Amino acid sequence: MIAGPCAVESEEQIEVIARTISQLGVGLLRGGAYKPRTSPYSFQGLKEPGLKLMRNVADRYSLGVVTEVMDLSLLETVYPYADILQVGSRNMKNYHFLKELGKTRKPILLKRGMDATVEEWLLAAEYLLLGGNEQVILCERGIRTFDDSTRNTLDTVAIALAKELSHLPVLADPSQATGNRDLIKPASMSAVASGADGLMIEVHDHPEKALSDGPQSLYLDQFEEMLPDLARIVNAMGRTSNWKQEAEVLDI
Amino acid sequence: MIAGPCAVESEEQIEVIARTISQLGVGLLRGGAYKPRTSPYSFQGLKEPGLKLMRNVADRYSLGVVTEVMDLSLLETVYPYADILQVGSRNMKNYHFLKELGKTRKPILLKRGMDATVEEWLLAAEYLLLGGNEQVILCERGIRTFDDSTRNTLDTVAIALAKELSHLPVLADPSQATGNRDLIKPASMSAVASGADGLMIEVHDHPEKALSDGPQSLYLDQFEEMLPDLARIVNAMGRTSNWKQEAEVLDI
Amino acid sequence: MIAGPCAVESEEQIEVIARTISQLGVGLLRGGAYKPRTSPYSFQGLKEPGLKLMRNVADRYSLGVVTEVMDLSLLETVYPYADILQVGSRNMKNYHFLKELGKTRKPILLKRGMDATVEEWLLAAEYLLLGGNEQVILCERGIRTFDDSTRNTLDTVAIALAKELSHLPVLADPSQATGNRDLIKPASMSAVASGADGLMIEVHDHPEKALSDGPQSLYLDQFEEMLPDLARIVNAMGRTSNWKQEAEVLDI
Amino acid sequence: MIAGPCAVESEEQIEVIARTISQLGVGLLRGGAYKPRTSPYSFQGLKEPGLKLMRNVADRYSLGVVTEVMDLSLLETVYPYADILQVGSRNMKNYHFLKELGKTRKPILLKRGMDATVEEWLLAAEYLLLGGNEQVILCERGIRTFDDSTRNTLDTVAIALAKELSHLPVLADPSQATGNRDLIKPASMSAVASGADGLMIEVHDHPEKALSDGPQSLYLDQFEEMLPDLARIVNAMGRTSNWKQEAEVLDI
Repeated sequence: MIAGPCAVESEEQIEVIARTISQLGVGLLRGGAYKPRTSPYSFQGLKEPGLKLMRNVADRYSLGVVTEVMDLSLLETVYPYADILQVGSRNMKNYHFLKELGKTRKPILLKRGMDATVEEWLLAAEYLLLGGNEQVILCERGIRTFDDSTRNTLDTVAIALAKELSHLPVLADPSQATGNRDLIKPASMSAVASGADGLMIEVHDHPEKALSDGPQSLYLDQFEEMLPDLARIVNAMGRTSNWKQEAEVLDI
Repeated sequence: MIAGPCAVESEEQIEVIARTISQLGVGLLRGGAYKPRTSPYSFQGLKEPGLKLMRNVADRYSLGVVTEVMDLSLLETVYPYADILQVGSRNMKNYHFLKELGKTRKPILLKRGMDATVEEWLLAAEYLLLGGNEQVILCERGIRTFDDSTRNTLDTVAIALAKELSHLPVLADPSQATGNRDLIKPASMSAVASGADGLMIEVHDHPEKALSDGPQSLYLDQFEEMLPDLARIVNAMGRTSNWKQEAEVLDI
Repeated sequence: MIAGPCAVESEEQIEVIARTISQLGVGLLRGGAYKPRTSPYSFQGLKEPGLKLMRNVADRYSLGVVTEVMDLSLLETVYPYADILQVGSRNMKNYHFLKELGKTRKPILLKRGMDATVEEWLLAAEYLLLGGNEQVILCERGIRTFDDSTRNTLDTVAIALAKELSHLPVLADPSQATGNRDLIKPASMSAVASGADGLMIEVHDHPEKALSDGPQSLYLDQFEEMLPDLARIVNAMGRTSNWKQEAEVLDI
Repeated sequence: MIAGPCAVESEEQIEVIARTISQLGVGLLRGGAYKPRTSPYSFQGLKEPGLKLMRNVADRYSLGVVTEVMDLSLLETVYPYADILQVGSRNMKNYHFLKELGKTRKPILLKRGMDATVEEWLLAAEYLLLGGNEQVILCERGIRTFDDSTRNTLDTVAIALAKELSHLPVLADPSQATGNRDLIKPASMSAVASGADGLMIEVHDHPEKALSDGPQSLYLDQFEEMLPDLARIVNAMGRTSNWKQEAEVLDI
């Protein structure tokens, strides 16, 4: 289980969120410092100071840090602060970037492109694996379809298919997929029942004031409330609902 | 739980399937007698003799019958044989048909069009409800997207959304959605964890010889084997895994 | 060239439109009397009285009538009023309907389903041809994609492909495709340059008061103004821009 | 008009192609030296030696060079060889890359992402413009839809819309859009009739032996044969069919 805000916004924000998820037994903190935004006029992230803030609070609460590397030229800056390097969906087909990233030795979370077939997603992972990095984690985050009822369409069957066709762990990101906090709980349960090995969920202490993607961030108490129901599905799948387990497996 | 072949093909076929699903505790038998096929040169169904065969074996095993009404002109023929009238995805936007069908008094299973938004699906249900038929059951069966890894993309979040926006029961059809028998189990579990009230699954005694949609039909023993795992998810959702329950609720 | 309102709304409306398009040299009048609307609460058409109004003004100005048959049960009513029977995109996969319609002997305009591949579209035409009706006209009207910049995405290359794979004439409907009157002119020119044999365009004397699809209807003077530019493309394709030609070829 | 092979493969290949297009009056030569390929096991391009080959033959025939910058880390290498820097569709949402590229002072050809709305495409251009580079050229290259009749779906109406919403020139790439050399001619004509300011077309001396994208490359004589028909559409749009014009406007 990975939880945290879309973007690091302030020391207070990341501190409150980190403390809360830590108390709930979550082992990995997510947060963006460089944000890929559709419009150049939107909030673009706090950059390196944001990474520092996140690293500090993560250490205080013994959390691992998951954060996106938006471009090869930012790798050196981001690398020391991150425990898991995230490749965003917009970069899944950026093959030169993937080749270079594959030479690093930290776990990589590879999001599925919103226009990528399952085969293209697995071939993108192959670019990372060829560089010698074997700690590749796939993450389904919804694909783009004609239906705008939700931000994207969560493709839960793709999770099962990716697990059948590869040996890699597969997570789901129900926040990006739905874009709607009221649908994050069923989306999460649905992903787990399709075989997902973990979830990455956006939470925020004040989603209504978030500088990016507020509507898809859970309130901290909403997050807490969904965990028992989620745990029942996790257990029905024959897994233990120890939310830190993943971080331990990855040896962070 | 609704199970049965894509199409009724012979007395022996439907007898074996009906007996097996009945023994497994399933209460509703599906089977097509008029098949909407993309090509006019494909098998088009046994028509009324097929309906007779299905009705006979269903009565023998105390099963309800779910079958498609392909056109208004076939309603009179199909009506006496069916317990639930199915509207196929190709007909979901056939509004004149829906208006007339809404005047009948048998439960109607309304499949989501493969190009329909959730709002359009609910408005199609409205056409049925306006006719005075209040026994409308929605059925998510996958939407058409760019990804051809599976036949369609099962939209499990749409199940949760349809339940939030309406009071109607929502089923899922993992066979049509995936087109691949190896993915029916995770698709079924995923749909249930998203809140689906039931499933409609294609099973066949000899899928490799099926006259239509063989690749997406479960072998009878595959179907039997998936039920215990499925039951665990059903129970984790706080529901009882009595597969006949739905038929009873609908008073068939 | 086929022109006319989305729906027949009143004698005055259809009279003004018919007179204008006739003066501009157009030979075929379109207009819906039974409208397939997403919501049951939207205007559903004037029904048979609308057909009568349209037939009367069409005769007054020597125009052919193109109108949709929404359901088999309406065929007998619509048949005497129409010169070309239109199958709407929502009905393109309604195979029982197509089979029966193929037994008639009036030209049929088969719209492409908004979720249909080119192959599925041609196989739907095959259902009509098998019934013995050889006057099948295809009509591309845009497909449903992730991009909502326009109502649908006009697939001009599909026009060229359909002409390569079959011997049938292919029209385009730029009004349905774009949903935006400001884009109808480039869409029309683009379709013709891809090989379209004709166009079906929605025009209205007062689009802002139209009971359906006003935003995609051209003002009558807009329609008149686009014809010279369109004629230049038609001529560049080696065809004559006599807008009545099509009606004559079809012997109406 | 921009023409050339998908990828530079050898001195002989690029020499023959450059000579031919130059004789036909084309002013810009395209060719990839770094190729973004879905599979890491596919041909990845000749890299800098390929750029040198292309620059040499371009100079011999007074052609401008259009080539892709796949990653920021390759900008310094590619820059001296190129007259127009191409941003591939996979990079259209790579915002950090766009920001940096906007600081250069050579014209930039920005391909539309295969999953990008028109608004997202224009906002991506805004990232380039904000850097101070005002020579941004848009290029529609087909979007990803459910229909696999063609490689992508050429969205000709998007060309008209992009021109309406911005002041930037818009090209079309019918090769990437269709993936089928037999459809390049109608696709090209359709794009021009929708208002495209230019075309980028893949040609090859031996498409059947091409190391990438052979099926969508025109034979050199096919290319020559389509020019007169294309010129008629260009002229009908009130433009001159001097294929070098574009290069001159861009002052290369």
